[in-house]
Amino acid sequence: MNGAEVLLRTLLANRIDLCFMNPGTSEMQFVSALDRVPAMRGVLCLHEGVCAGAADGYARMTGRPAAVLLHLWPGLANGLSNFHNARKARSPIVNIVGEHATAHLRYDAPLTADVAAIARPFSGWVRTLASAAEMGQTASACIQAAYGPPGQVSTLIVPADHSWSPAGEPGPVVAPPARAVPASGQIEAAAAALRQGDAALFLGGIALLEPGLAAAARIHAATGARVFTNRYAGRSMRGAAWSFARRLAYFPEPAEEMLAGLRHIVLVETEPPVSFFGYPGRRSTVAPEGCHFTRLAAMDEDGSTALEALANALHAPAWQPAPAPPPELPPAGPLTPESLGRTLAALLPEGAIVSDEMVSCGEAVNAALASAACHDLLPVTGGSIGQGLPVAVGAALACPGRKVVAVEADGSGLYTPQALWTMARESLDVTVVILANRRYRILEVEMRRTGASAIGPRADEMIDIARPAIDWTPHGRSLGVDSVRAATVEAFAAEFTAAMRTRGPRLIEAVL
Amino acid sequence: MNGAEVLLRTLLANRIDLCFMNPGTSEMQFVSALDRVPAMRGVLCLHEGVCAGAADGYARMTGRPAAVLLHLWPGLANGLSNFHNARKARSPIVNIVGEHATAHLRYDAPLTADVAAIARPFSGWVRTLASAAEMGQTASACIQAAYGPPGQVSTLIVPADHSWSPAGEPGPVVAPPARAVPASGQIEAAAAALRQGDAALFLGGIALLEPGLAAAARIHAATGARVFTNRYAGRSMRGAAWSFARRLAYFPEPAEEMLAGLRHIVLVETEPPVSFFGYPGRRSTVAPEGCHFTRLAAMDEDGSTALEALANALHAPAWQPAPAPPPELPPAGPLTPESLGRTLAALLPEGAIVSDEMVSCGEAVNAALASAACHDLLPVTGGSIGQGLPVAVGAALACPGRKVVAVEADGSGLYTPQALWTMARESLDVTVVILANRRYRILEVEMRRTGASAIGPRADEMIDIARPAIDWTPHGRSLGVDSVRAATVEAFAAEFTAAMRTRGPRLIEAVL
Repeated sequence: MNGAEVLLRTLLANRIDLCFMNPGTSEMQFVSALDRVPAMRGVLCLHEGVCAGAADGYARMTGRPAAVLLHLWPGLANGLSNFHNARKARSPIVNIVGEHATAHLRYDAPLTADVAAIARPFSGWVRTLASAAEMGQTASACIQAAYGPPGQVSTLIVPADHSWSPAGEPGPVVAPPARAVPASGQIEAAAAALRQGDAALFLGGIALLEPGLAAAARIHAATGARVFTNRYAGRSMRGAAWSFARRLAYFPEPAEEMLAGLRHIVLVETEPPVSFFGYPGRRSTVAPEGCHFTRLAAMDEDGSTALEALANALHAPAWQPAPAPPPELPPAGPLTPESLGRTLAALLPEGAIVSDEMVSCGEAVNAALASAACHDLLPVTGGSIGQGLPVAVGAALACPGRKVVAVEADGSGLYTPQALWTMARESLDVTVVILANRRYRILEVEMRRTGASAIGPRADEMIDIARPAIDWTPHGRSLGVDSVRAATVEAFAAEFTAAMRTRGPRLIEAVL
Repeated sequence: MNGAEVLLRTLLANRIDLCFMNPGTSEMQFVSALDRVPAMRGVLCLHEGVCAGAADGYARMTGRPAAVLLHLWPGLANGLSNFHNARKARSPIVNIVGEHATAHLRYDAPLTADVAAIARPFSGWVRTLASAAEMGQTASACIQAAYGPPGQVSTLIVPADHSWSPAGEPGPVVAPPARAVPASGQIEAAAAALRQGDAALFLGGIALLEPGLAAAARIHAATGARVFTNRYAGRSMRGAAWSFARRLAYFPEPAEEMLAGLRHIVLVETEPPVSFFGYPGRRSTVAPEGCHFTRLAAMDEDGSTALEALANALHAPAWQPAPAPPPELPPAGPLTPESLGRTLAALLPEGAIVSDEMVSCGEAVNAALASAACHDLLPVTGGSIGQGLPVAVGAALACPGRKVVAVEADGSGLYTPQALWTMARESLDVTVVILANRRYRILEVEMRRTGASAIGPRADEMIDIARPAIDWTPHGRSLGVDSVRAATVEAFAAEFTAAMRTRGPRLIEAVL
């Protein structure tokens, strides 16, 4: 059994049966081994940004790693910005990067570069495989590291000769480590803080899934504590039933307004809130000055169990999400971020997964989605655009029975359009909504905020993407995805309804 | 004058008047300053891979740096794989990366990461600006470093507050350093090696431009020394008149055959030749064992002047490129790499610039182009795909009077298709030829070479990109480029002829 086969069998023994890949010569042994290890599913992506983002989406929805197989330094480099998002999402990912054969490394061949050096900044664990014989053990260590907690990108660099050489037996099955439950002192301190009033919970990590949020609802009902969610957490349950939990706003002023008057904030799997960017003359933190923070659960602890224990300590009664009818469709008329958001909120099916890369439209659309049927929201965690379509690919493969809706800005959508091809290739049940305002509109706002002067004509050219306009319907079709355009509420509602009723990939260009 | 304006004015003072950019919030001051510093031309790219590759193409054609402006860690990450190619091409590039305001850096905001850490592996010079007051001096130092010699990527990381704060005056004008002329001992040693017979010149760097090649032609004629060119050099003069200089083959076996029998190789701005990948049971070097290497000029020396001195030392007579009629068009029939190459060779206009990312078709097409009219060839220098279209963007901006032909594989073409949009936006005179074989065909060959077994059906799925087929004509049109398809020699010849007769971007999908 050669090294490549040992690696694939070690992954499979550890329930990792999906690999997003864009292989090259140094990874050909892995590709060849797919025919001998048929339980491993290879999913081809036409750019490594898709591989990295898809593995992130898969991990956010399953809590388990997928594997990624990349070609040397440039393949890794192309995946980096989505690995950055995965790192901020604390997603477990097993990232396998091929390397030149060891005897070839001493030459300055064109593809030679320091792979480990660029892997380190975003990987929690990096190792270059030292010999073929160590493949099994090292692969298991790589998997173990990916789980954390919290989850992290775990990068194994494999010289080609270690893939083609005999490599013994697969490595051991590793147990995903349990997250520690916070000590009772942490629970009591949080309870004491909440009892003082003017208090809030600030939730992140996996505390934003159903068990944690349900416990937060009990606490909210029993104490009146406000509940805020870290908008950069990898996954959160949302919808009408969960609207007591409010996403903290993007800009510091509305975020400060949401937190105004608080004297105590209990942190659950998150750090204190900060603004996305720093601006002239503004502080970076958004909680009231002098606000006291109490940590209920650290990033690597079990915030859900801690919240349940806190609810019990507060004698909070049981809580059931109240059934809520879907909101009404907005009146017919032009599409705006607001009317599009309301249309989505009215038509989004229960249990949908929303991949959110809406950028300037995000505040309006997400405000509307707070009243939608229950769904999972997967936002951009690290601020690196080009994530929305790849994350949708991974989420669809993770949850084949659920509808995935990728709501995507036109500027960021063009970062990794190759994801559309994989959606078509794998017949993924993803509806892509392109928010076509034909501008990097967020930059208009940011430009004013950074104290720059009015936007002159030459500055405007760096923000305007309307010349030429990206024509998304032929673009989507060219990559195999059935694509339509809608410019009014009624047209968009009809197309979105049709997309929700059929399975498979579909793109709707929503002209704003 | 704030830091952003000081930077732009320092660039302009140093004749850097073009900036490829995809800015974000932390770079808004630079965008704003474009209206106050109108001599700086901002060229918007919809992905940072385009910015990096375009700056590389510009530098290869002018020898001077363009500037690149990128947004924080992810923007830099997205440019990395093309910066890798630029590094291998030894292209001078002034790479400006925005960073959070210094007061914001202590918080773990979503976009926070170690920018310098990922800049270092591919940058010859990296500095994070320490204060606004140092902007002018530091920008000048960055420009100086970019020139080398040899050229390199020079990365200046600029915290946002240093852009918006007063920053004094622009930095000084720096003199591009002259390359050292090799000592007479090096000339004499090379002459002695050539006089022994069974000798060759192996040329790289800027020795592959007209003066160096013309001197090599004299040496070739006078001594019978074979002349080989490093296929990974950033730019080389090619065409019928220059066909005495042969590109070393991609695979080691034909490369070894080309070099067979040599006892002396004179190196000019290059290291001894090595194979692209290492393979089981093969050595990485391709020159005959025991072959003696004599270095005429190192990478940072002036190889052209050294070659002229060598030709004089050998009393080689003057040389004029012989006029050669263009080759005949091949007979009508299906498009193959060979017939397409012959068609291009027949129709390529004198003085064209060919951006070559042909991958598996490259050997056949480039063999044909050896008999074409005189042109510049810009190959993939670092093996990272996604370079061909961006380099064409940069070359077209560098040489507005010359026709640029980007000959592009379909697999690698989908890495940075966003370059098509910039071609349309800037009305660049680029003809893109997509070689649509609908496979990662090079991997078929490589798979066999790495000793992997026959390609089974599941391995084949990772090589086949025909399901779905990328439909390049709507794809190109969706990004604003007039696009057509050709599936025969006669159709391709007609479309290519039409493209050569008109200015502006055009895409031809050549179905192989």
